Amino acid sequence: MIGHDELRERAVALDAADPLAAYREQFVLEPDVLAYLDGNSLGRLPRRTQERLAEVLRHEWGGRLIRGWSEGWAELPVQVGDEIGALVGAAPGQCVVADSTSVCLAKALHAAVSLVPGRDRLVVSAVDFPTDRYLARRVARDRGLEVVEVQPTDSSGLTAQDVGALLDDHTAVVLLSHVDYRTGSLLDLAEVTAMVHAAGGVVVWDLCHSVGVVPTELDAAGVDLAAGCTYKYLNGGPGAQAFVYAAARHLPVLDQPLPGWWSAEDLFAMADELRPAVDARRLLSGTPSVLGLVAVREGVALAMKAGIDRARTKSELLTSFCIDVLDHLADSGVALEVVTPRDPDRRGSHVTVRLADARGVTDRLIERGVVPDFREPDLLRLGLAPLTTSFVELHDGLVVLGEVLAH
Amino acid sequence: MIGHDELRERAVALDAADPLAAYREQFVLEPDVLAYLDGNSLGRLPRRTQERLAEVLRHEWGGRLIRGWSEGWAELPVQVGDEIGALVGAAPGQCVVADSTSVCLAKALHAAVSLVPGRDRLVVSAVDFPTDRYLARRVARDRGLEVVEVQPTDSSGLTAQDVGALLDDHTAVVLLSHVDYRTGSLLDLAEVTAMVHAAGGVVVWDLCHSVGVVPTELDAAGVDLAAGCTYKYLNGGPGAQAFVYAAARHLPVLDQPLPGWWSAEDLFAMADELRPAVDARRLLSGTPSVLGLVAVREGVALAMKAGIDRARTKSELLTSFCIDVLDHLADSGVALEVVTPRDPDRRGSHVTVRLADARGVTDRLIERGVVPDFREPDLLRLGLAPLTTSFVELHDGLVVLGEVLAH
Repeated sequence: MIGHDELRERAVALDAADPLAAYREQFVLEPDVLAYLDGNSLGRLPRRTQERLAEVLRHEWGGRLIRGWSEGWAELPVQVGDEIGALVGAAPGQCVVADSTSVCLAKALHAAVSLVPGRDRLVVSAVDFPTDRYLARRVARDRGLEVVEVQPTDSSGLTAQDVGALLDDHTAVVLLSHVDYRTGSLLDLAEVTAMVHAAGGVVVWDLCHSVGVVPTELDAAGVDLAAGCTYKYLNGGPGAQAFVYAAARHLPVLDQPLPGWWSAEDLFAMADELRPAVDARRLLSGTPSVLGLVAVREGVALAMKAGIDRARTKSELLTSFCIDVLDHLADSGVALEVVTPRDPDRRGSHVTVRLADARGVTDRLIERGVVPDFREPDLLRLGLAPLTTSFVELHDGLVVLGEVLAH
Repeated sequence: MIGHDELRERAVALDAADPLAAYREQFVLEPDVLAYLDGNSLGRLPRRTQERLAEVLRHEWGGRLIRGWSEGWAELPVQVGDEIGALVGAAPGQCVVADSTSVCLAKALHAAVSLVPGRDRLVVSAVDFPTDRYLARRVARDRGLEVVEVQPTDSSGLTAQDVGALLDDHTAVVLLSHVDYRTGSLLDLAEVTAMVHAAGGVVVWDLCHSVGVVPTELDAAGVDLAAGCTYKYLNGGPGAQAFVYAAARHLPVLDQPLPGWWSAEDLFAMADELRPAVDARRLLSGTPSVLGLVAVREGVALAMKAGIDRARTKSELLTSFCIDVLDHLADSGVALEVVTPRDPDRRGSHVTVRLADARGVTDRLIERGVVPDFREPDLLRLGLAPLTTSFVELHDGLVVLGEVLAH
């Protein structure tokens, strides 16, 4: 029953009805890959990025050299930041693109702690991505706070209630991931932000697994700070720079722990005393990579053109179809457990299954041209990218998963 | 007398005798530029970087996607770090390439402070690059230290004696630039390091303006920590990632302030508790940019092939010839003052002149295809890159400078 005709027909029909189907042609598709199901780790290469980088090399670095800085490069961190801002509901001037996600999160966390003097607890998810927890502990240690780790009561991931139960008048900062990197579980960003504010704390959101696929209204929700990466659903390239957001109401006095000449109001003043910018440039430190920003910008442009609402609609259809096929496999006797929430409103854009030998299965899938993502010890993540994953690709990849598991 | 035949003949002869002359052909030369004299701000584009980035886009990101991380990308920060290590006298395992210069310096400074508990002064040059001073003040504030700024007694830049006069048993950390970003003055790294150690402190060297052009023996000198950028004489591209060095004797216990999953001994363990690497990977934080590292690597490869000793020899010839031509201009009645030390052993690879209207002169030079670098309020920097600057190019650019100043 694996690869059941009816499911494939549904996939074909879903592709035919998909208003974003043509976006796939804007990306390089790997000849040896049957199904790329890891868009939540590294998004595909936009064709335009290849062309644009070649142009920037030849005409800008190669042709203009240092003059490039006064001919547009210096504005890139803010321009691309504002473009990402448009995807996450942030008005201009509050986002910049620069540094790695870790460094952006560290800046946001230190800045957040300074906003709530006199409080002594930093709340973090016990199941968050390692870097988030390492940084939370480190910032807490440096700033004299105690870390409180929230354990999820539901195996699929944290709920707003889990977080709420730990908030009190000790709460300084709450660091949370919008989408759980393992299970794909989605928190209600507005609800949790309001809970943290009601307790008198400030919130830092990690948007790595939601930016580009989950509509996010940072300004409307009154979020304090956020950061996220651009190499997943924004297709910015391996290790592409991250973005960091700080609300306009905080920026004029924001205490940024890594000041450099790029944090200044006037970049070329090079003054003896730093006069920090009062907009998001305050969050910059050193010279940002131009090649990196050019690549991020092309990926972001595609996401903006597709539109976050259409991306979310397709993402829900992809994850729902994925769960239907996985259920079909389970009904056929294949041993797997879907750990991602079945309610589309409670999940991001990846679906995770628990398997006995997830590592071995991953290896065998890759041998057969199906690229998923393995997470210790027993999870297989299937990252579905609305701009590049087709329903037929997903279906065919899951058929191979069924065959591998059946053996 | 400007553009005196004899000087141009000398330039032609110096080019003819230059063992590195052929390297110039390995770089993209801008058609509208008569003389590029800003290699100390942004180095030229290696032709091979264009080819290599196109390959990596097409075959690695485009072709291998997430598999690239286990097929070589993950080793790049260490590999390129070790290659730069070879240029600065550091044995493998002590350098990594990642993050901006500012972030690398911040890591080095925080780590340095942790090495000297109980001491309360951070010494920094009063004339250093703004970021260095901003970061020194910030780290001092965060760690409860007092900043002591060293004023140079000589207008060309700090001397070892200036630094030595301020060292005592309060000295925790000394942050210094190997080459002064404005005047080009060079400190004796081994001598100053020994002085700091004799006082019981640790030293952090900023190698931005010396890496690739001044032989540096970090290990032999017993340097504690160092950082430097790759977009000047290493031709890594605009905003390319920096490198950071920590001595092997410090690394196993080094206190790195920005821990992330890339700091771990086992990158993919993603353990609940961070077990940091005991080599330079400990200095990494988040996912490094692959495109950035690929570009840096090509620039570094050219510097390694040329050899640091040959680069230094040519650099000294370039700066000496530059000063000779400037003296010739001054003798002809042009109002300029060379502020760079006249002793080749006391300077790096740029020559700085003080002018009445340095900004206006810079604009007029650029109009005529000569690209220097302006520094507030009255300095014109002439950055001479041994791999790409020819003596004739330098000569012809200075002739235009003479003409501009004569009007």
